[in-house]
Amino acid sequence: MATGHGALLALSGGVGGAKLALGLAQVLPAQQLNIVVNTGDDFEHLGLTICPDIDTLLYTLSGRGNKSLGWGLEGESWNAMEALESLGGDTWFRLGDKDLATHLWRTELLSRGVQLQQVTTELAQSMGIASNIFPMTNDSVRTTVICDEGELPFQHYFVRRQCEPRVQGFRFDGIDTATPNPGVEQLIMDNRLDAIVVCPSNPFVSIDPILQVPGQWQAFAQCSAPVIAVSPIVAGMAIKGPAAKMMRELGMPATAQAVAAYYNDLIDLFVFDRQDQQDIAGEERPHLCVNTLMVTRSDRLRLAQVILDYVVEFSKR
Amino acid sequence: MATGHGALLALSGGVGGAKLALGLAQVLPAQQLNIVVNTGDDFEHLGLTICPDIDTLLYTLSGRGNKSLGWGLEGESWNAMEALESLGGDTWFRLGDKDLATHLWRTELLSRGVQLQQVTTELAQSMGIASNIFPMTNDSVRTTVICDEGELPFQHYFVRRQCEPRVQGFRFDGIDTATPNPGVEQLIMDNRLDAIVVCPSNPFVSIDPILQVPGQWQAFAQCSAPVIAVSPIVAGMAIKGPAAKMMRELGMPATAQAVAAYYNDLIDLFVFDRQDQQDIAGEERPHLCVNTLMVTRSDRLRLAQVILDYVVEFSKR
Repeated sequence: MATGHGALLALSGGVGGAKLALGLAQVLPAQQLNIVVNTGDDFEHLGLTICPDIDTLLYTLSGRGNKSLGWGLEGESWNAMEALESLGGDTWFRLGDKDLATHLWRTELLSRGVQLQQVTTELAQSMGIASNIFPMTNDSVRTTVICDEGELPFQHYFVRRQCEPRVQGFRFDGIDTATPNPGVEQLIMDNRLDAIVVCPSNPFVSIDPILQVPGQWQAFAQCSAPVIAVSPIVAGMAIKGPAAKMMRELGMPATAQAVAAYYNDLIDLFVFDRQDQQDIAGEERPHLCVNTLMVTRSDRLRLAQVILDYVVEFSKR
Repeated sequence: MATGHGALLALSGGVGGAKLALGLAQVLPAQQLNIVVNTGDDFEHLGLTICPDIDTLLYTLSGRGNKSLGWGLEGESWNAMEALESLGGDTWFRLGDKDLATHLWRTELLSRGVQLQQVTTELAQSMGIASNIFPMTNDSVRTTVICDEGELPFQHYFVRRQCEPRVQGFRFDGIDTATPNPGVEQLIMDNRLDAIVVCPSNPFVSIDPILQVPGQWQAFAQCSAPVIAVSPIVAGMAIKGPAAKMMRELGMPATAQAVAAYYNDLIDLFVFDRQDQQDIAGEERPHLCVNTLMVTRSDRLRLAQVILDYVVEFSKR
């Protein structure tokens, strides 16, 4: 990159964020890519501490992701789940045999007092990942979804109930006392970032927990590097997941513009999808309007390059 | 059985005990067999609570045991272990994919506050086991092996170090405050037992923890039913495991007679193996001398029948 220091910070949740992160890791020198990841959807299950968004990033960036499932590991087997089923155990959260190893080892290291950052770095290294993955905090934050039928821990809402209950709001338990990841704070303090990219992840349950870690919204907003958000909503639909359904249930229009308004003064640029071109005629916020869908490898690379090109332009101002 | 109430209580550790228990479960109505199991070699590993002796019994009694390995489940796969290895994780305790389900579900139930007895009963039922398996206590007891090189948690001594360090003694952490399993106490109080069988398990690390749960040695010794111990030592060697090595390191003769002396006034009958016939000429303790090796199914049945025949004889006195 022909700009200042060449480092980029991406804010990411699970699948959508990981796709863009993979694109960025391919157009940048991979070690220049830093990703701060949502841990609000982490949970304790079957004795294990499971970090779905971190794992999606690990598996995607290492090229091990299961492309047909869209989650988990390629070439996975399910013998533990089958045996668990025969014991009458909880199998609603599908854990493949190979995937289990990640959770077992993370849980063991955490039980020895190793911080989540160190655990994540070790897992990333053993998978050959050169980019830097930062859990949003080393502290425990757990997202609760407030539904009209009561409160649900995030994975119970998301996986067990398949996002069916109507959403009234969200609570990030533990966030008030959570400390931002020192690695992310250092990146900002050192003024090493050329851009902050908000990936096309769910604004409410993937990006918001990262932003709500005390001091993070302000740190990102006040950073001299531009903050660029890519819309997770295209033509009124979420590319993946419940974002559009949540927006309707929260009384918001399910539009990309509403997401841009939600991020408000955090962002310097909003990237709309070309399908929304007609609807954003009056948009006054700085924006791009490009093809944001990432179906193929070249889609990811093209979108990542669009973002880098903007960053280079921005740095010349 | 032609005696009083027909119920039998077996004290068991892992593999050797489980073989005799399986024999007993086949010559008795299975639901008349009660087994109190050592939990001193339980441990926490990779976030899971693992109960090796209970699992050996579950797998053996349900016919799912891996006959070629001598531990674990038949038809097992090892994909989680392979993945764990590639992460640089601890793989010295081999956990098969199907076996993992047992530990995952037990750990989940324990974390919900379900007692180990209830967890064990549910696992046994889901595996179609009609006999009653009683963990020696619902409380946490953990065996530490005191070696000349320092202290080792039992599984670290037994599996990771393959029993190589020289033994000086044992400590059962938590035993002083452990409460006996109420189900075992009830069996004794109700006077429903026709016999108590000490299986040919390791006297020091399998049977002793059961006997050291406060009140248990006395309860078994004072029970009106005869206590019958089957020798784990044949011709100066342990049938399986480190019992004979431990005896030598503890300064005891590695003989069946020394085991009989160790159990002392607890037992009413000691069952020697025929191979030791020459050496026990002077044995004054009530004893039998039969073939105790359990290689085949008919070996197990024959030994179990020898024990039952004695119990019937005893009841006629």
